[in-house]
Order: sequence, then structure tokens, then C-alpha cells
Amino acid sequence: MLRLYDFHESGNGYKVRLLLHHLGVRYERIEMDILQGATRTPEFLAVNPNGRIPVLVLEDGTRLMESNAILFYLAEGSAYLPDSTIARAQVLQWMFFEQYSHEPNIAVLRFWAFAGLLEANRALVPEKRARGESALAVMDAHLADREFLVGDAYGIADIALFAYTHVADEGGFDLDRTPAVAAWVERVRAQPGHIPITRIE
Amino acid sequence: MLRLYDFHESGNGYKVRLLLHHLGVRYERIEMDILQGATRTPEFLAVNPNGRIPVLVLEDGTRLMESNAILFYLAEGSAYLPDSTIARAQVLQWMFFEQYSHEPNIAVLRFWAFAGLLEANRALVPEKRARGESALAVMDAHLADREFLVGDAYGIADIALFAYTHVADEGGFDLDRTPAVAAWVERVRAQPGHIPITRIE
Repeated sequence: MLRLYDFHESGNGYKVRLLLHHLGVRYERIEMDILQGATRTPEFLAVNPNGRIPVLVLEDGTRLMESNAILFYLAEGSAYLPDSTIARAQVLQWMFFEQYSHEPNIAVLRFWAFAGLLEANRALVPEKRARGESALAVMDAHLADREFLVGDAYGIADIALFAYTHVADEGGFDLDRTPAVAAWVERVRAQPGHIPITRIE
Repeated sequence: MLRLYDFHESGNGYKVRLLLHHLGVRYERIEMDILQGATRTPEFLAVNPNGRIPVLVLEDGTRLMESNAILFYLAEGSAYLPDSTIARAQVLQWMFFEQYSHEPNIAVLRFWAFAGLLEANRALVPEKRARGESALAVMDAHLADREFLVGDAYGIADIALFAYTHVADEGGFDLDRTPAVAAWVERVRAQPGHIPITRIE
């Protein structure tokens, strides 16, 4: 059985949980409380030397890190990853955008809010706020005349961006300012097999 | 002919230039001086709303953004991208590691050094220094008993990580402290068709 090292509040972990649920794949989930330093222990650093969740352990023991690489692996051969070389590159384009321009701003402000770290990091908040708003504006312009991020079907690019976008309000972002993003969030929620970020199994 | 929006000092642009040279693909290169704001003009934002280089424009006009997504697109069907689903996921794992844990620290300190911005950002330097050293240590442990990052062949994961690692000293990092990384840098430099970051054509 697949094993997933995860943290229940993590959007990066939720990406993998959501796709596994869509695919109907059963797995063992191991909760790592990152607020208590669980990903910095020698035991966990032997699993992932980069000290981050999620980590997917395959049945043969191979460990796969980085949430979006895990999505790409699991989606192979399914309806959640298109076949063509250019469409796959566009999926990756949005997933790299997520990890470089979106997550470090939108997910980090949410994390600081719930971990009580906003005051300690107050000098960094305005730039992260501006960069997060810019990332949402890029998504909003793209989604203004599209149903989903790549092609005309829901897939792992949408899952990767949905994870932290739909809880962006927890970091102080207002999706009413990006109506195409807000409408896309509802389309993602309406997909068959959708589960909320709070559901762990 | 392919068109590449690029900046000659950019490691992210260099990744694409290096792979195109390996593949023997000719292209038109358009220099965008990011120090002079060339990627923030209305004209360029119409090309890439995220305001970043590189951008690859295909012969049919399709625009592809994000350096590592461009590498994945160009390498399809070549020796620079393995065939198996798990090896491809491992390639992506290292490329997401590069954009999340490596580039924001190692490339940004180099950029601040050559753009004269180290003093203006001095409060942020120690954390970026520590995180960059941690990323190099993760690479060093992985490369201690391997020739290349994935499998036993040079490929786009190596290209993605080489781009800013081999000039990390320009941001104040000392590769003598990570000897397996330093040896891998020399193996990458010895590949047929290698070109230095300073070569533009």
C-alpha cells in the first residue's frame, strides 16, 4: 500500500489526498505535526533530507518528494493529466508558477496566521501580500475565458493551484477581487470525488 | 523558428539555452534587460502576464513560461529526459526542489550581489544564506554516491540545478564545503555540447 507522510493543515499534502481520492487509491497516512518539529527529527530527515511533507512512499520503498511531482506521478495514465507534450508542459508551467509565485506568498501568509507568526514576520508581510495578489491576478486574467487552467478539463494543474487558493482568505486575501478565480474555485469544488482540505482518512 | 525571451545573466534563461545547444536547435533570442525593467512593460506583460523570463514562443505562437516546464517540453523524446514514469517524477522532484528550496536563496543572493541590492536586503540575507546552504547540503548527500541527479545519465534535472549551483560563489556560497556537488559540477561541464552561462547566440 502507498504511504503518505502528511500534515492535515497542509495544502501541499491536501493536493495529494485530493488526487488519491479522485483516483480511488487507498493509502496509509502518517501525520507529521510540523508545528511541533516532526519534520526536523533525524528519523524524518532520513525519509526526506529536505525536511518537508508530503512524501509518498511507493510499494517498493521508493520515496517521492515535492507535492507537484507526486501529482504528476499519480496522474499518469488518468484523465487528470493530458496526453500531449505541449499540454503536459502547460500543466507543469502552472505547477511551477504555483511553487514559485503563489505558494511562497499565499500559503506562507496563511501559515503565519494560524501559527501566530504574523507579528514576528511583519516586515515581510507587505511584499508577500503584494506578490500573492499579483499571482491571483495572473490566474484571474487566465481564467476569465476558461473553465480550467489547461485545455478544457479539470486536472492536476487545477488541483495544485486550488489547494492554497481556496483557503487564501485564511491568509487575508479576498477572492471577491478576482471573480474568475472565485468562479473556478466553485467549479473545482463541484468535481466528482471532491473532498475538502479538512478531510483526512 | 523558436523564439526565446531571455536575459543573458539569468540562470533560468541559461537552462533553456544550454538544452537548446545540446539538442542542436536553432532559435531567435530576444534580450530583455530585467535590471532596466524590460519585463514590466505593457508589451512584455502581454507576452507573459507574470512578468518573467524565460518565455519560449513556439512556431505556432504558443507561449510557454517557467524555465523547468520549458526544459521538460524541449527534452521530450531526447536522451535528456528518461522514459519511465517514476524517473520522470524524480526529474520533476529535483526541478521543484530547485524552484522552491534552491533558486529563491542561491539565485537571489547572486542577483542581489550583482544588482547592488545586498545592503538594501541585509535583513533577509542570513536566512537566504542558511537555506541556500541547506539546499546545497541536500544535493551533496544525494550526489555522494551518484554521478547525476536521476538514474545514471545526465539530463534536465542536472541542467536545472547546474544553472545557479555553478555560479553560487557569485552569491557568496563556497562549493568547497560540498565536494560531491563540486565534482558533479565538473561532470556537467564535461558533457558533450556544454556551453558556459556567458555564451549567447
